[in-house]
Amino acid sequence: MKIAVLGGGHGGYAAAADLTLRGYKVCLFTFSAARVETLHNNDNVISYTGVWGEGSCRVAHVSNSMEEAVSGADLVVMNVPGTGHERYLNAMKPYLRGDTVLYMNPGHTGGALRAAHILGRGRIAEANTLSYIARKTSETSVHVSSSDKPVTVGVFPAKETEAVLEVIRKAYPYVVAGRDVLESSLCNINAMFHPPGVVLNAGWIEHTGGDFRFYYDGVTPAIGKVIRMVDEERLAVAKAYGLELDNFCTVLYNAGSTTKEAAEANDPYKACQESEANKFIKAPPSLDHRYMHEDIGSGLLPIAELGRLAGVPTPITDAHVTLSEAMMGRDYHAEGVNLEKMGLDGKTIEQVLDYVTRG
Amino acid sequence: MKIAVLGGGHGGYAAAADLTLRGYKVCLFTFSAARVETLHNNDNVISYTGVWGEGSCRVAHVSNSMEEAVSGADLVVMNVPGTGHERYLNAMKPYLRGDTVLYMNPGHTGGALRAAHILGRGRIAEANTLSYIARKTSETSVHVSSSDKPVTVGVFPAKETEAVLEVIRKAYPYVVAGRDVLESSLCNINAMFHPPGVVLNAGWIEHTGGDFRFYYDGVTPAIGKVIRMVDEERLAVAKAYGLELDNFCTVLYNAGSTTKEAAEANDPYKACQESEANKFIKAPPSLDHRYMHEDIGSGLLPIAELGRLAGVPTPITDAHVTLSEAMMGRDYHAEGVNLEKMGLDGKTIEQVLDYVTRG
Repeated sequence: MKIAVLGGGHGGYAAAADLTLRGYKVCLFTFSAARVETLHNNDNVISYTGVWGEGSCRVAHVSNSMEEAVSGADLVVMNVPGTGHERYLNAMKPYLRGDTVLYMNPGHTGGALRAAHILGRGRIAEANTLSYIARKTSETSVHVSSSDKPVTVGVFPAKETEAVLEVIRKAYPYVVAGRDVLESSLCNINAMFHPPGVVLNAGWIEHTGGDFRFYYDGVTPAIGKVIRMVDEERLAVAKAYGLELDNFCTVLYNAGSTTKEAAEANDPYKACQESEANKFIKAPPSLDHRYMHEDIGSGLLPIAELGRLAGVPTPITDAHVTLSEAMMGRDYHAEGVNLEKMGLDGKTIEQVLDYVTRG
Repeated sequence: MKIAVLGGGHGGYAAAADLTLRGYKVCLFTFSAARVETLHNNDNVISYTGVWGEGSCRVAHVSNSMEEAVSGADLVVMNVPGTGHERYLNAMKPYLRGDTVLYMNPGHTGGALRAAHILGRGRIAEANTLSYIARKTSETSVHVSSSDKPVTVGVFPAKETEAVLEVIRKAYPYVVAGRDVLESSLCNINAMFHPPGVVLNAGWIEHTGGDFRFYYDGVTPAIGKVIRMVDEERLAVAKAYGLELDNFCTVLYNAGSTTKEAAEANDPYKACQESEANKFIKAPPSLDHRYMHEDIGSGLLPIAELGRLAGVPTPITDAHVTLSEAMMGRDYHAEGVNLEKMGLDGKTIEQVLDYVTRG
């Protein structure tokens, strides 16, 4: 099985190392010529620390030619922020074989639907969140503190779920099948977490350059309330499409990131106070950050858009989008994953459900 | 001329002392029996420091009987936060003489209209902001750092402006006549300043108990942008009612609170950085504060409501109201100064303009 790994960030390096260690011939693609040169000069060797111990592995190919990376691939694993998806998808479109499985790890919200709309095809899977917790420590090394996370994967169209997951499971044995890409898209917990944290702490971030603990200090009782209410809007949107999803605190607990008590209380403030995993993570150094651009444009916006289609009001979600647009001087409604980009514009709920199931 | 001063806070104490010093027999009303007792025990003497030098004066009457305070008054000066208006207005209603002038100092936004709706009468004036900068230093003393501020006063109905201002000018010679109460209401600069500062710094306030400089540290470039955009919505609403108002930075400059350069640049961030008057003012100790309750419910909400009536969208204003409601668990749309409470529900713009002019 030939695998392409797309993306030269934290996730891409983790995936390239992981899949190489599993014995696959991987081609790691990045748009950065400098990064490709650095890795070539290092004999394609990536060093790793963390859950796999300490070691290094040689990735079969490293390239900034999309044609070389994806044209013969059986599986393309895309590890790219939501803000980068359009660029990658347009670049791969001419070279992607019809039966190649595209696995977006993660797809964020509406990622697989946007991909299907751009590529004009199916066999697209998306994870609700990245299956690694990883940080690049240099241009030739990565620290992986969690791997094999049991992420929820939706497949477009859903009728191909088993066939597509059969391919993905060779590389990622622990994925959990979602009903469809609406389920994986609406399980995007980062969109609940990051926007309230950055919007309602905007001055603090900008004044201090992010010098406070984002989840532990920054999620105060009032912000915890807002997270819960944004989460309730997400759950209401999901329900309109027939999905009964776990709430934010339960997802956090199931991921091992908080206590049972916090989950049972459905109290995001308590969940953050009692999250050892997140306790020391600092706030972003500025508002010009993926917690804003990605988690609004590829997170809250598509949730609000799915709500709009279904007639489910999402006022608190909308307020985050509006204030983020004001602060950043950007138009997330246009640049983000809106109904049109998901290929859902003008559809009814029934038509959406039929489309995500049958294509 | 008999004057009643309503309110036992900063403004009430400043007004009671000011008008006593001007030679009027004032009755100071407060709902607090304890405060009345403290002043009675002090022989009704209020000490003052600040712009009037250092001294003390004996207020003619101090009472917690609304009947005693307002029944024979020629002028009632009401110095009460917007959140307290309904309580005061309902309490005074049975005792207010038909020709008594009610001067709301300040009226916040929609204050005079709400008063007219509750009282069922006119001869109501409202200042756009408190004519003093004052802080009580104890229950028998007040520090006044600014008096005789040339505030804009609107009168309901506007056709009575000259007659009503003739009464007010005996006590407050420096008031400036506004076109009507729409002008005084829409010149509420606190509503531009405080809500972005508290909403977009909510976590910082809650985590530190307000231990940062609200205007100097808390109004960062991004928050300055939001202030300007909220201000643009206010100006657009005003324009729909035929009012061409000064922008936020110009108002601040005209009040002597910032530099000409900041005003000319129309840059609220720069205006705050260059405001010596505001530089050292700390943030509120919690979100449960008038910067939130008053400046949303008696500030941004009525501006948004006037916008809704006029068909002028106010998305950024609305976002502040929505997120404040979420954080505080309150319904500012219901408890604040909405169209119904202003007596404007169901009216067209033309009908509103006729009503504020002719009653």
